[in-house]
Amino acid sequence: MYQTLPSLLDTNADKGDTARRFTESAASDGAFPDDEDCVAWLDEHRAANGYRVEQVPLDKLDGWYFASDTGNLAHRSGRFFTIEGLRVQLSPGRVPSWHQPIIVQREIGILGILVKEFDGVLHCLMQAKMEPGNSNLVQLSPTVQATRSNYMRVHQGNSTPYLEHFIAPRRSRVLVDTLQSEQAGWFLHKRNRNIVVETDEDVALQPGFRWLTLKQIHELLRVDDVVNMDARTVLSLMPFAPPTGTARPGAVPDDGFRDALARSLDPDATTLHSMTDVVSWLTENKATYQLTQRLVPLLDTSDWYRTDGRIAHKNDEFFSIVGVDVRAADREVSGWMQPLLQPAAPGLLTFLARRVDGVLHLLLQARPAAGALDIIEGAPTVHCTPHTYRNLSPENRPRYLDYVAAAKPHRVRYDVRLSEEGGRFLHADNRYQIIEVGDEIPLQQPSDFLWLSAHQLMTLQRFGNFLNVEARSLLACLHTLW
Amino acid sequence: MYQTLPSLLDTNADKGDTARRFTESAASDGAFPDDEDCVAWLDEHRAANGYRVEQVPLDKLDGWYFASDTGNLAHRSGRFFTIEGLRVQLSPGRVPSWHQPIIVQREIGILGILVKEFDGVLHCLMQAKMEPGNSNLVQLSPTVQATRSNYMRVHQGNSTPYLEHFIAPRRSRVLVDTLQSEQAGWFLHKRNRNIVVETDEDVALQPGFRWLTLKQIHELLRVDDVVNMDARTVLSLMPFAPPTGTARPGAVPDDGFRDALARSLDPDATTLHSMTDVVSWLTENKATYQLTQRLVPLLDTSDWYRTDGRIAHKNDEFFSIVGVDVRAADREVSGWMQPLLQPAAPGLLTFLARRVDGVLHLLLQARPAAGALDIIEGAPTVHCTPHTYRNLSPENRPRYLDYVAAAKPHRVRYDVRLSEEGGRFLHADNRYQIIEVGDEIPLQQPSDFLWLSAHQLMTLQRFGNFLNVEARSLLACLHTLW
Repeated sequence: MYQTLPSLLDTNADKGDTARRFTESAASDGAFPDDEDCVAWLDEHRAANGYRVEQVPLDKLDGWYFASDTGNLAHRSGRFFTIEGLRVQLSPGRVPSWHQPIIVQREIGILGILVKEFDGVLHCLMQAKMEPGNSNLVQLSPTVQATRSNYMRVHQGNSTPYLEHFIAPRRSRVLVDTLQSEQAGWFLHKRNRNIVVETDEDVALQPGFRWLTLKQIHELLRVDDVVNMDARTVLSLMPFAPPTGTARPGAVPDDGFRDALARSLDPDATTLHSMTDVVSWLTENKATYQLTQRLVPLLDTSDWYRTDGRIAHKNDEFFSIVGVDVRAADREVSGWMQPLLQPAAPGLLTFLARRVDGVLHLLLQARPAAGALDIIEGAPTVHCTPHTYRNLSPENRPRYLDYVAAAKPHRVRYDVRLSEEGGRFLHADNRYQIIEVGDEIPLQQPSDFLWLSAHQLMTLQRFGNFLNVEARSLLACLHTLW
Repeated sequence: MYQTLPSLLDTNADKGDTARRFTESAASDGAFPDDEDCVAWLDEHRAANGYRVEQVPLDKLDGWYFASDTGNLAHRSGRFFTIEGLRVQLSPGRVPSWHQPIIVQREIGILGILVKEFDGVLHCLMQAKMEPGNSNLVQLSPTVQATRSNYMRVHQGNSTPYLEHFIAPRRSRVLVDTLQSEQAGWFLHKRNRNIVVETDEDVALQPGFRWLTLKQIHELLRVDDVVNMDARTVLSLMPFAPPTGTARPGAVPDDGFRDALARSLDPDATTLHSMTDVVSWLTENKATYQLTQRLVPLLDTSDWYRTDGRIAHKNDEFFSIVGVDVRAADREVSGWMQPLLQPAAPGLLTFLARRVDGVLHLLLQARPAAGALDIIEGAPTVHCTPHTYRNLSPENRPRYLDYVAAAKPHRVRYDVRLSEEGGRFLHADNRYQIIEVGDEIPLQQPSDFLWLSAHQLMTLQRFGNFLNVEARSLLACLHTLW
């Protein structure tokens, strides 16, 4: 197969204006403002399709079985994913080693957003999509969420709409295209390809899809449980230039925060550390932690048991694996059963933000995770399940957790409940926050924390998988505040 | 531990002039030009120390043993590395699955070069170091090559000179600091931290060390088997600005090649593809290949046998694992035994280079490897052991191999024999080439090849492990040609 990449010598591709065009989209009402309200549209989609999700015991899941020798849970077709056991050793760490169930999904799927100019403004083709694990079932999703099994079928009659725009050889222009990880506490080495392509062609609008500007999407990102995780991770990869106009309606009152954030998008703004130091800080932390991962039979995971048709920890902590029976009228198959991972309690994901010489900086955490491909990832300042630490003394709780709990309301710039991937997780609704701090949180931090500007976070995003999916979600949310 | 990173707000760190300073060093004779010739210095070091390396059967290696249940080869202390079995599945690929022995070394070590200005010019502190696998034993090495076991000892009496400059908290300024992989055909997920730090302090010169400018090192890179792999990979990470002066003595005759190469270092030069397209091309290839790696007992690797005191393939192809007995007067211990991997035949590593609108581009290959952490790495255009393909028809030989073999001498801009890591490999002497091509090699290439400028390769290097160690070596060599 020969390349169809655009050549800069032959085309007008990449004039360095992609970031400016995304920023313009974030200030534009869109070409279809008379359409019904988007939340109402998702509600209608939900009501019209008669979705129903019921829990069933794992041993009653059609198509799934526990392997007799390992106890691993797998699909009879060999497709989708498996639930296996993982032995983790982590040093340094409060818990030096443990066992846990882990979702193993080796294939790299596609999360793609198709964009197109209407009236000179970029619009994103977004989908009303049901996933059985979402509390409200239907959320705003990218144009395409496809596993490799899905997209290898594309040439034999495509059942995933718009997939052809994302598969080589493609006629569209790639604006963003990187591999990005997903929840490394629950997945082993899972990554998806996050891709944004722009088309100039006519695109027929299929039912359940609509074109939205980034302004419209940003407004939806400020509402609980509307924009799904797959959409958020792709959105987080879009570069933005500093805005030139006035604040958008709904923005926080202007006490200088917005200006500090706008400057934080500027590649020429003075930052606390250079990019060389940022990469060195990641390297230092990767060299500090030693993480050993070994897949073991699910039967051999100490402290975890199969009981009452689910897989759970002996103290019912952390999470369990449960089965669901899904009915949905508009899917390629009218119903299916599958396992889902159900967290025991909601998570808290908080970025602390601080102005440094008038430029907003975010406090990134270098955080190891059980299933991480490369030891650590950049994570929100606070990334934990507070319930897990309820009985521990303050010095054993995650750093900044107590600080965040006591934050004054006017410091909380963003505070929205967002769902994790509803195709794998059941009711994994987490609290996402951006909290502005002052000099009570010093610039000099412990060696696993570092202050970065928004532009530095975006620069890391261009080159690969440096931020975990929760930090990426918060970066997408941060862009709603300017 | 608290950070000691320099802050851009408080210091003069990182004015963006690091690349310019490295380029100046590459044009400077150095503050110590009256010293003896460097090759002679290495020869003296070799002669003075009475080094002796003899092959011994693996089962006679003091300190090493074959585990009875797995047949894996390990050190009794649990340190250093192990030789285990690996089952590899790769799709697409000429050979869809195979077994092989693999070196497992989970610790991240340090390869570090200390730099310091003398007379306003950066000098690198380089070491004459013996490694038992080098054909000529002593080569020019970085300031520090330390395993984690080495450097964790640093606080209990340091036996590795200058290590304190590279360990946090450090007083020196970090110019380069990334994790980089090593031979993924022979190592499983092996990476070292490649780091360059600059000091303003007085540094006492220890025996076996000397300060060299990059000009002096570049001259040595044009001589067979002088600059070792560890030095080359660190050198490859140094950024260079386009040179402003005339060609250095010893440069190739000026037929425009040097100007095209100089423009290729320029961040503002027009390139065939954008960085977004470069990252997308890597992503596309990572999503195309499916690579499954599973450690298995060395006893279970089909086609490989323990025989005559070594581990070899049934046809004596690829490589074998042999034992050596090492005697050396100047080491912390006066002698030791260890296994080494001995390749069956030399490798060929060639970058094809072509001027595109007056800017030199290198043809990078997206190449999967058995032990790669992330499926594929950027590799030289030709990266193979030609001997392996001697009996295959031309269409089954690696792409461009026959083209390279027939290249006219005046097209060969660089052609030097260089050794791979002599601490793990026995006589792994490979041929490194840079060959200029014209429009007989089109700009449009198969989907696993892409033309990049030198500045694009340097940009990838800033952010992580995108190039394999052989491509990095060639990048270091490319800088000797301007």
